[in-house]
Amino acid sequence: MSFTFDIDYNDKSSDARAGRLHTPRGVIHTPIFMPVGTVATVKGIHMSELEEVIHAEIILANTYHLYLRPGLEVIDKAGGIHSFNSWKKPVLTDSGGFQVYSLGKNRKITEKGVEFRSHIDGSKHLFTPESVVDIQRTIGADIIMAFDECTPYPCPKDYARDSMHMTHRWLDRCFDQFSKTDTDSAVQQCLAPIVQGSVYADLRAQSAAYIASKEAPINAIGGLSVGEPDEDMYAMVELINGILPASKPRYLMGVGTPANLLENIALGIDMFDCVLPSRNARHGMLYTHEGIINIKNEKWKKDFSPIDARSNADTSRRHSKAYLRHLFLSKELLGAQIATLQNLTFYLQLVRAAREKIKQGVFDTWKEKAITQYSQRL
Amino acid sequence: MSFTFDIDYNDKSSDARAGRLHTPRGVIHTPIFMPVGTVATVKGIHMSELEEVIHAEIILANTYHLYLRPGLEVIDKAGGIHSFNSWKKPVLTDSGGFQVYSLGKNRKITEKGVEFRSHIDGSKHLFTPESVVDIQRTIGADIIMAFDECTPYPCPKDYARDSMHMTHRWLDRCFDQFSKTDTDSAVQQCLAPIVQGSVYADLRAQSAAYIASKEAPINAIGGLSVGEPDEDMYAMVELINGILPASKPRYLMGVGTPANLLENIALGIDMFDCVLPSRNARHGMLYTHEGIINIKNEKWKKDFSPIDARSNADTSRRHSKAYLRHLFLSKELLGAQIATLQNLTFYLQLVRAAREKIKQGVFDTWKEKAITQYSQRL
Ligand SMILES: [Zn+2]
Ligand SMILES: [Zn+2]
Repeated sequence: MSFTFDIDYNDKSSDARAGRLHTPRGVIHTPIFMPVGTVATVKGIHMSELEEVIHAEIILANTYHLYLRPGLEVIDKAGGIHSFNSWKKPVLTDSGGFQVYSLGKNRKITEKGVEFRSHIDGSKHLFTPESVVDIQRTIGADIIMAFDECTPYPCPKDYARDSMHMTHRWLDRCFDQFSKTDTDSAVQQCLAPIVQGSVYADLRAQSAAYIASKEAPINAIGGLSVGEPDEDMYAMVELINGILPASKPRYLMGVGTPANLLENIALGIDMFDCVLPSRNARHGMLYTHEGIINIKNEKWKKDFSPIDARSNADTSRRHSKAYLRHLFLSKELLGAQIATLQNLTFYLQLVRAAREKIKQGVFDTWKEKAITQYSQRL
Repeated sequence: MSFTFDIDYNDKSSDARAGRLHTPRGVIHTPIFMPVGTVATVKGIHMSELEEVIHAEIILANTYHLYLRPGLEVIDKAGGIHSFNSWKKPVLTDSGGFQVYSLGKNRKITEKGVEFRSHIDGSKHLFTPESVVDIQRTIGADIIMAFDECTPYPCPKDYARDSMHMTHRWLDRCFDQFSKTDTDSAVQQCLAPIVQGSVYADLRAQSAAYIASKEAPINAIGGLSVGEPDEDMYAMVELINGILPASKPRYLMGVGTPANLLENIALGIDMFDCVLPSRNARHGMLYTHEGIINIKNEKWKKDFSPIDARSNADTSRRHSKAYLRHLFLSKELLGAQIATLQNLTFYLQLVRAAREKIKQGVFDTWKEKAITQYSQRL
């Protein structure tokens, strides 16, 4: 049966758990981090590196971006995203809600859906809950995200309440459309609903209960990590996780730093995605087993020690900090490649370590040490 | 003994030959193409890909660029370029003559050397034949190029003659300095002189004779492929190769297209370098076994056939033209990576094929078919 979730281990001193999410394209071991492949490519990373170096088990792609470019006609003709980009494991597509929200003035939200202008050519488009499900059907995503409005931070409570209820109504329409349609590919897809409600506990509780009532195989939490203090994020997650079923994987969207991952794993989150490791890599900020490095810093100029001796990425063990710094100062492509490999490999090593520590029953003590070490700036 | 050259096969119907150049860092099978790694990195290419996909046997780096960034202090501290960038096979450094020539108004050429301003920060520097040998000693290049003036095309004969004689006098100073100094590393280095003389047959003959008199282990031809018609290039190469000793490898600098390589191999050239395959790759122009492709062209939009089914690069067999086109239109890093892998792998496959055809005694007929096929635009 597809999209079933087995919990292998529950941590005794926290709500952390280690599980396996079964999908038609393979098993996902949780907790898991999903590298972001916006336009069907993880920037600077070969597919073989995702498979054999980073050991990604699922990647994320963006409905909004793929819809605009290469366009559905190309992806459909290719036979779906897996044929198009040759990634054979699961793909999750976000619904475009977050991208449309980021467009600012170039979009108009109504009950019907969102009218927006393309950031590429200014052309006008309409996303509705129905069309967004159809698009993700065509893309062939294994996990389809419901169409939601992601509220900004801070957000007036009235706006957050109205928006949340509209997201709920949109969710009903998404599920209607999902049940009326079938996958384009031979492979089963699933639809994941999203909890909203900004940083208001009563709204979040209400939304979590509504999402839980859908009995979906995966439940997501959106609208966090949009600028609120970490403490507010953790408080909301703790509250929501107390309402969402423990038997289903919980996906916290758009989070976060290594510390954010470990704290939220402790609160019972199973899945994460974030542009942070890949975007920061391209700016020379590295997450390593020693701590955080700004590789452009003068202090690495003659440091010929490996980028990260404990990395699974051979490039991070082979190349020195001085060499990587030189590539960044020279604005060389290879700099972004090596840095992105470092950060994504680190993130996947981190969630695998968390899983291992949960299994060994030592997650809680390990977590504190890991957060201290991995958050320090070198 | 280092930098000896064995000729394994001589083609019967042309001057092509297949040889082995022995260096302290490994054997180079000729004819060979040397990927350009300007600042100690081949743009967009991992070292493991140079080793295991492209199968490069030697790469080129630029004295001028390395001198400015990361600077000699860093490279010296690292223990030379091989330690710095982790490439263990031979490295050839050009002398900076061509880069300094490209600076245009920002340089002044005198008998003493070349005064120039850095393209990075405008700072003033002086390159002399002596300093350029010293710099390449410190860089730890296996093959050091003499300091020359590369004349432009077209070039008045008087200027070409004067410049050529100055290059000869500079050459004497290079050899003096080379014999007075020793390698920084444990590994023996060699110095290669360069034939100049623009497209004037008498000057080229005179220069070739002067260069041959130095009895260097490798002889180079510079100042071609700077805008002159291909026929002029071939005429000069044929003339020069009749004067340079056949027993030593001949290196034609900065050449060229696949057709240029094959025609010059037929004239007895053994070594090439050029930015063409890597630079064109970054602009979406691909050399494939079917012909030349502009991957941005609309015609590839829904072409899901492999980029090059006969490529040794797994990325070119794995990914479709449509996917690569999408990466280029989306300005994704991975596009440049895959395209560069394609072109450099193609170039190295091409020279290996040439070597094989020379061995089999069928080089001449193969060459004509290969030039037709690989020069056609798809
Ligand atoms: Zn509601
Ligand atoms: Zn002379």
